[in-house]
Amino acid sequence: MKRIAIDMDEVIADFVPKHLSIFNDKFKDNITIENLKGKKLRELRPELKNEIINILTEPAFFRDLKVIKDSQEVIQELSEHYEIFITTAAMEFPTSFTEKYEWLKEHFSFLNDLNFVFCGDKSIINADFLIDDNARHFKRFNGQGILFTSPHNMNETEYVRVNNWKEVKEYFLK
Amino acid sequence: MKRIAIDMDEVIADFVPKHLSIFNDKFKDNITIENLKGKKLRELRPELKNEIINILTEPAFFRDLKVIKDSQEVIQELSEHYEIFITTAAMEFPTSFTEKYEWLKEHFSFLNDLNFVFCGDKSIINADFLIDDNARHFKRFNGQGILFTSPHNMNETEYVRVNNWKEVKEYFLK
Repeated sequence: MKRIAIDMDEVIADFVPKHLSIFNDKFKDNITIENLKGKKLRELRPELKNEIINILTEPAFFRDLKVIKDSQEVIQELSEHYEIFITTAAMEFPTSFTEKYEWLKEHFSFLNDLNFVFCGDKSIINADFLIDDNARHFKRFNGQGILFTSPHNMNETEYVRVNNWKEVKEYFLK
Repeated sequence: MKRIAIDMDEVIADFVPKHLSIFNDKFKDNITIENLKGKKLRELRPELKNEIINILTEPAFFRDLKVIKDSQEVIQELSEHYEIFITTAAMEFPTSFTEKYEWLKEHFSFLNDLNFVFCGDKSIINADFLIDDNARHFKRFNGQGILFTSPHNMNETEYVRVNNWKEVKEYFLK
């Protein structure tokens, strides 16, 4: 059985709208998702880089993120044909471990939690495919990287791209 | 640069003495490390299996474990010649994430925390070597498994064995 590793933030957990809304509230700004095309928030407001990262360390930031459309249904279907692992760069935000674990148990209860991986450098992941919004993780990954569209990666052209979970299903099950 | 993945409990963190001492106190028992040769505590007292596991979910159980002798010095030396990742089956004890992270930051501060991996099924680990006390993790591991001696694995004969960190150094640096 081939193995698919799947990232969390911006792939199954809808990270950007919450992050942006807290940022705009806090700094009386008006950045839209449109403005984020091709860049991350910290690149758009480099003078606030630390504050932007600090938002992610607020208690429970990751706990109530919305689930990305169709990800539950498609991953459930994929899990009948592939081994599924969730691989998230949680070491970048060590306060997020428990929140991320609880979020997965709530929204992806059909997955085995022994298949959850909290890591940093994803070159440690042994899988046939990695679905991720950060192309940097593909550089040293030994399987096929699949870029999940997110505003910041719009200009990336080097990798196979999927725009939503319907396209993921198409890629793996057609 | 070749990569070595290293387990935590019973390899760099001295898990058994603390676990045993809490168990003996709690259940007025007198089990010694000698008694554990060839088996785990839960196999020796199967009627208390749940209680034995519950000890590990007590707040901060993992936070103050002693460091296994010579592991810091040898890993520091190995890190000059190999890429080092710490790979621990933390998903079995989801309450342990923060404790394990803080323990690593305290005792192995020379390692990059992006090289810490909290997982369950270690077949997800992409490394050349895995030093672990649980031989079951080697079954689907695609590199060389190296069994670190712990009372419970004394009778395991299938894998390369190291008895202490001096032997690890010998194996990798001689």
